Formats: sequence, C-alpha cells, structure tokens
Amino acid sequence: MSISITGIAGFIGSNLAKILLDRGESVIGFDNLCRGMMSNLDSIIGHPSFTFEVVDLSDIDAYRSALTAQHVRNPISEVWHFAANSDIPAGVANAKVDYRDTFMTTFNTLVLMQELGIGAILFASSSAIYGDLGNQSLTEDIGPLFPISNYGAMKLASEAAISAALESHLQRAYLFRFPNVIGIPATHGVIQDFIRKLKATPGNLDVLGDGTQQKSYLHVEELIDAMLYVRQHACDKLNYFNIGANDDGVTVKFIAEAVLEQVAPGATISYGQGNKGWVGDVPKFRYSIDKLSNLGWQPHLGSAQAIRKAVTQIAQQECGQ
Amino acid sequence: MSISITGIAGFIGSNLAKILLDRGESVIGFDNLCRGMMSNLDSIIGHPSFTFEVVDLSDIDAYRSALTAQHVRNPISEVWHFAANSDIPAGVANAKVDYRDTFMTTFNTLVLMQELGIGAILFASSSAIYGDLGNQSLTEDIGPLFPISNYGAMKLASEAAISAALESHLQRAYLFRFPNVIGIPATHGVIQDFIRKLKATPGNLDVLGDGTQQKSYLHVEELIDAMLYVRQHACDKLNYFNIGANDDGVTVKFIAEAVLEQVAPGATISYGQGNKGWVGDVPKFRYSIDKLSNLGWQPHLGSAQAIRKAVTQIAQQECGQ
Repeated sequence: MSISITGIAGFIGSNLAKILLDRGESVIGFDNLCRGMMSNLDSIIGHPSFTFEVVDLSDIDAYRSALTAQHVRNPISEVWHFAANSDIPAGVANAKVDYRDTFMTTFNTLVLMQELGIGAILFASSSAIYGDLGNQSLTEDIGPLFPISNYGAMKLASEAAISAALESHLQRAYLFRFPNVIGIPATHGVIQDFIRKLKATPGNLDVLGDGTQQKSYLHVEELIDAMLYVRQHACDKLNYFNIGANDDGVTVKFIAEAVLEQVAPGATISYGQGNKGWVGDVPKFRYSIDKLSNLGWQPHLGSAQAIRKAVTQIAQQECGQ
Repeated sequence: MSISITGIAGFIGSNLAKILLDRGESVIGFDNLCRGMMSNLDSIIGHPSFTFEVVDLSDIDAYRSALTAQHVRNPISEVWHFAANSDIPAGVANAKVDYRDTFMTTFNTLVLMQELGIGAILFASSSAIYGDLGNQSLTEDIGPLFPISNYGAMKLASEAAISAALESHLQRAYLFRFPNVIGIPATHGVIQDFIRKLKATPGNLDVLGDGTQQKSYLHVEELIDAMLYVRQHACDKLNYFNIGANDDGVTVKFIAEAVLEQVAPGATISYGQGNKGWVGDVPKFRYSIDKLSNLGWQPHLGSAQAIRKAVTQIAQQECGQ
C-alpha cells in the first residue's frame, strides 16, 4: 500500500514526504510545479519507495489518468491533500486562483477517491476558515464561519465537500487547520518576504501595516509531528483539529526585528498604517489548541522560538548565511 | 434600475418575481430551465417590467453575455441569486450536480458582479449548511459547520465565497438560510412526492423511513415576506438570517396523514425503517429564528398550518382537486 501526497513539491508537502519515507512508507507525489519546486524534492528523488508525477489536479482527466495508473501499480490507502494556492493576495486579486487550485483540486480528489475506492483523506485546512472573529478564542467548534479571503473561503468549501463525502463514500477524514507555518524550504511568507526586501534595499525594511498585527506561528517540523500524532491517535470518522503554537503569537514588529538582527543588524524599519497587511488578512486572532492538547500533543517551541529558528533557516536558504 | 433574479423559473424565484413586479420593480430573470419551468412564469411573461432569458449560469461566457446585455439596457442594482440544484438526493448520487448548479452559479455570479460593478447580492442559503448538530438549537452563529449533503456543502461554499467577496468588491450581502419551504408551484418535496405516489398506487402510501423524522416548514409566501422584511430592515454589510417557522416542526407521519386526508382518505400508510429518508437528510433539527424575531418579523403560520395549506394547494396543482 502507498500514500498519496498532493502538492508534494510545496513547503509542507515536501517536508511530509521526507518523514513518511523515513518511516518506511511508500509515497506517491503529485504537483503541478506552479508554486512547488522540484528542488524541494532533491533529497528524495531516486528513493526506491518514492514516485513523483507532474500533473495539474484541477484537470480531472489528467488527474484521473495519473492517479489510476499509480493506484493500479501500488494501491493507495490514503491521500494527504496539500495542493492549494498558498498565495493569499493572489487569490484576493483573482478569485479564480483559489477556486481552481484549492477548491477544484479538493473536489477532483474526492471524485477520484470515490471512483477508485480510496477511503481516507487528510486535508491541509487553515485557520483562515474562521475569518475575523475578533478577540474570541478560536476553538474548532466556533461559528459563524465567514472567511475574509478567497483562500479561507475555498479551504472552508473544501472542508464542506469532504464532510458531505463522508456521508456517501468516504471512510475517514482528518482536517488539519493550520496556522502560519514557517521553516524551510520557504516558498512564501513574511520572513522570506522581509529577507528578500532587505537584499534588494539593504539599509531599510518597509513593512506593510503598523507592525502591531499579531499571529501565532508553528514550525513545519512540529506541524508534521502533530499531524502524524493526530493520524495515529484520533479515530473518529471526521477528525478536525487546530494545530498551532500554544500562545497568542508574536507581532510583525517582533518578526521584522528578528530578521534584522540576523541579516541586517544596522538597518532601519519603516512601518505603514493600519493593522491589516492586505485585503483578506486577519489582523489578530487567538488560536485554541486545547483539543489537540487534550489528545496529548503539545508543541515544543513557542511562536517566538519558532520565528527565530525559521529566520536562521530561511536566511541560510536565501543568502547562504 | 432593475433587480436580477437567478433561478427565476423555480419554485421560490417565480413567487419572488411576482411580488417584486407587484411592488413596481423592474425584474430581469435568468434560468436554465433544467428544474425550473416556463409555466411558473405564465402570469408574468409579457409584463412590461419583466425580462426573461434562458441561460446556463454555470457557463460563465454565456452568463456574461446575457447579464452584460441586460445591465447595459437597464442597470442592475442587486442580484437575488436563487439558481441552485434543489434535488438533494441527485446531488448525493453525483456530487457534480451541486458543484455545477449551486456552487459554480454562485461563483460566476460573484465574478460577473465584480466585472459589472453590481454591489448587492441576496442569496438563497439553507439550513443544510448546519449539517446534523443533533438537538442543539440552530442559531446563526453555531459551529462547527459540517454539512452532510453536497447540497448543504455547496450552499456553505457559496456563503464562504460571498463572505470573501465582501472584503474585496461586494458592497452588501444577505444570506437567507431557508428551512423546508412549501407551497406552489411545487417542483419537488415531500408533499408532491406523496401525492404522486398516491396517484400511481392509490390504496397505499409507501414512506421512506419510520415517519418520526421531524422538520419545520415554512410557506413560500411567508418566506418571501420575511426576505423582503430583512432586505428593508437589516443594513449590516453582511446580513445572515435563519428563516423558518417558530416551532420544532412536524413529523413525516403528520405530513403523510395530512396528504391522505386530502387526496386519499381510505388509503393505508406503510413506513420503512430508520429516521433518515436518504443519505444527506438531517433527521431532526431545532431551528432558531430568534435573530429574525428580534429584527421584528414573525411567521403567521406554524409548521402544521403551513403543511395543511400547502397540501391543499399542491393537491390542486397535481390532481386538479
């Protein structure tokens, strides 16, 4: 039996693949290589238990051909569906990006799982499904759910489609609601953005917003550890968990200063106005991980530690420092 | 200025169109006539303020041509988006039905509203977005939202897309979460189903499930009254309301007996097993309309009265009785 990972060449998919292969699993990976990069797979290409195929999962005929061929060769027991648009502003500018790359890839995955009789899905959902609920603690059962970005909307739409599929053909689903995940190989995100800005204009860092925007951050290594823990210990038909740091997060100002300290100690920081970085960005939220803690998993790093670790790693990735 | 109604040839759309025309509005209607019927528009075709066009709203190019032409002729101020799959079991059998007819029609409507600068949408959402939350009172802010039918999933996906659109281009949205709506012209639903079964086999009515399934019902005349009330009195950017009868509903057994009393007094009723009529059907729920009541609107008919009124109307429609 093998495990399928969609979006395998992305930041989280590629990290997950390495760990599953290390654990002795057979892994079949799919990616359209739009945002994911082949270089993220350098360390596993050639592994005897790893197969990779370039395919656009929003094209159901191409996806069907690829998935069926792999399933016949080595039956797939579960799909880790991580393919998605990861660029929130791109989806705000053009709603079709999230529709195609996040929602349609999920919908097609469910259709093909039904056709092929694959029973278990593990889905990369997001804290963005909660929208802007102000200072309320975001527990998994909170409502109402009004996402403020197409990114969040299409993640919620995907959750809804998975939920409905459980009533007809799907055997089991895991919805992992990610916070901001950091680490390497970084493909996007605030740390990489700051480092690249400083490479372009070394003396000053321009920050969108006033720097008070506060979020919690989780390191990708911990995220994967948490997902594998949930996969092993939660056994409802529908399992849904926030995954995150056990704190209220750090500010953009903290991140900007951590980046400067690492890559440009003498530089200045210029802040903008307002506490929303872009349309669809949630200014501040309190993310509850009580459900995950009750299941027995806790992160080792707080948001501040995760940021410092990721800044060091991403600076090395970007600058060879 | 004119008002656009999608799905205008359906049960609710056609009733809404009549009332808006009676109030002196200009109405532009779209329908693909898959489930909607031209006969539902008999009384308004030819009205000087009414325009109707057959178009498949899941085909964005066709939809763009039709909407743009109408908007140029008579600028559209708001869209009442009622086009959707209304056949829940059809969407369980084939997820693409709800995807195409419910979600894609919403997504395309939002894309075109952005292109044409139309700012207000009024959306026919559903109690099905709540899934099966057991005996909890379904208030608008409840969570988690895990629909158990593709119908509910694609209504929730549509709400999410509308919510995100409010952050970029949309000016105002109304989400009306419908319960079971009854009345004429009936195109589907339990009353019509029972009457048609009795026409086919007059001596006995076969009921799916054990008859204990309980739901609340609202007459379409009251539904439209409620929506127009909310349109006038609620003025947040995002307005979302349950609309329903102010009671816990009536059982399938009650409906079966009301139908028999009206159309086949001597017939017997045979019940099946279990309290779910079909996959994706929510067996029982308590629907809160406190938010609507607090805004100042109350239904005049309880579920039982609405059922009796609709049985009489639908029997007349189906049998000429």
